[in-house]
Amino acid sequence: MIVARSRAELNTALDGAPRPIGVVPTMGALHEGHLALIRRARAENATALVTIFVNPTQFLPHEDFSRYPRPIERDLALCEQSAVDIVFTPPVEEMYPPGFATTVVVQGPSRRWEGEHRPGHFNGVATVVARLLNLTRADRAYFGEKDYQQLQVVRRLVADLALPVDIVSCETVRDPDGLALSSRNVYLSEEQREQALALSRALRTAAGLAEAGERDIPTLEAAMREVVERAGLEIDYLVVVDPETLEPLQRLEGAARALGAVRLGTVRLIDNLPIPPPRPTVPSPTLESPTRVSS
Amino acid sequence: MIVARSRAELNTALDGAPRPIGVVPTMGALHEGHLALIRRARAENATALVTIFVNPTQFLPHEDFSRYPRPIERDLALCEQSAVDIVFTPPVEEMYPPGFATTVVVQGPSRRWEGEHRPGHFNGVATVVARLLNLTRADRAYFGEKDYQQLQVVRRLVADLALPVDIVSCETVRDPDGLALSSRNVYLSEEQREQALALSRALRTAAGLAEAGERDIPTLEAAMREVVERAGLEIDYLVVVDPETLEPLQRLEGAARALGAVRLGTVRLIDNLPIPPPRPTVPSPTLESPTRVSS
Repeated sequence: MIVARSRAELNTALDGAPRPIGVVPTMGALHEGHLALIRRARAENATALVTIFVNPTQFLPHEDFSRYPRPIERDLALCEQSAVDIVFTPPVEEMYPPGFATTVVVQGPSRRWEGEHRPGHFNGVATVVARLLNLTRADRAYFGEKDYQQLQVVRRLVADLALPVDIVSCETVRDPDGLALSSRNVYLSEEQREQALALSRALRTAAGLAEAGERDIPTLEAAMREVVERAGLEIDYLVVVDPETLEPLQRLEGAARALGAVRLGTVRLIDNLPIPPPRPTVPSPTLESPTRVSS
Repeated sequence: MIVARSRAELNTALDGAPRPIGVVPTMGALHEGHLALIRRARAENATALVTIFVNPTQFLPHEDFSRYPRPIERDLALCEQSAVDIVFTPPVEEMYPPGFATTVVVQGPSRRWEGEHRPGHFNGVATVVARLLNLTRADRAYFGEKDYQQLQVVRRLVADLALPVDIVSCETVRDPDGLALSSRNVYLSEEQREQALALSRALRTAAGLAEAGERDIPTLEAAMREVVERAGLEIDYLVVVDPETLEPLQRLEGAARALGAVRLGTVRLIDNLPIPPPRPTVPSPTLESPTRVSS
């Protein structure tokens, strides 16, 4: 496994690397969610490349950039065990050298939810992802559904700038109790971890109600809020939205996505689940309209 | 020559195209300046590709988007004569399909001059150039020095997003009287055309003074202003700046660039020239220090 810390080292490694190149962009602190992405990149590509970069421009001033976990030796060992070919782990000045002046702004899917609660966050994400995908010459790039809005922003970015890369998404990996894996879960006390389960429970509640036939979105959202508020979590948002544009919906008519962000003290967690499209209504046979059944 | 009007047609053409691919992005209304770029792209690449797209997002609301010349049949004939392989001339909805949501913002070299006088212009340029270079799979892209600030913005964009393309610049092509070729010169009346010559004359004046040893930038700028004001042109800016950052300078110490934008009625013209770095001062032999000459 080659560990490249500069663009020059990365280019040397890439010049000998067979195509296709599958890239997993991460901020390190790798957990089973990342490893699922890495395994898939490994299986589907001739070269498997992981980037580890805690990107300062996607953190807001008051956020956890400086305390974000950086267990680099452990991360490298996990990559090695997963048969990764190249790890690119640049220092900040290699990603943002003197004179760097570009920001990629993706509106549309970035506007609401995380975009509202973390203004500027997605500019940082879009800019670093565009740069990383080009630097690594990615043919495919792997993103988790855990950061669902980020995934839609990246898809939009890649389509709009016509980046020559396929975006592959993988399902969120969860602990057996339902908690979505996150590098930020290490911030949770044991008690908070228990409380935090209410977030995924709320999302499952909405999915379950929808499956049972409930099509009214405000009803689904109220049910989610109740679950989360009972657990004493503060809600940033808890909504059922269009799965691509992430715009609010009033009524479930096709596929949708339930998204939530909650706070426990200084810790902020996000999660999401697919909401299945309503099943086509089978007209029930009645005495009044017997012909309908066979029509 | 293949004329591709959609991304699908372009991809079909590109799938059979040998590398390297040299791309000349234009807004059409081709003149000898474009043809110089095209000839060079033709000579240096296995595939020569010209894009013709009058990009709405780089025009300000009051500008000449709707009346910008669009002699497409003549442009295609000129490309054919220049042995171009592929022309990509998409309609607006092919470049900005429904849901398009991305803007590339390059600060730094875009901040001043055109950036100040045409706010938002370079966002439009950077976004369309990033998209076009990726869509056309450009290995090299050719830009004229006529739009000198645009050239520096594109260089910054390509470096920052790590786009896999070499930017090649070509000297401004001029009429024998010095007027820089521009698709907008067709807007000039005969009398205005005569007046317009003062812009290139002013730039040559600054270059000449610098060559003669003048190092004080305010002096160079005052000389340029005098030439242009005598001709009755209105000045948007007329400056000598750092050739990469385009920041103002006080004293000529290395290479620099003279930039100007002037208005004649509703027509706005820009031009620029390199200002040579001051020659190293040769110590003049004197009776007091005879040893210096041979040291």
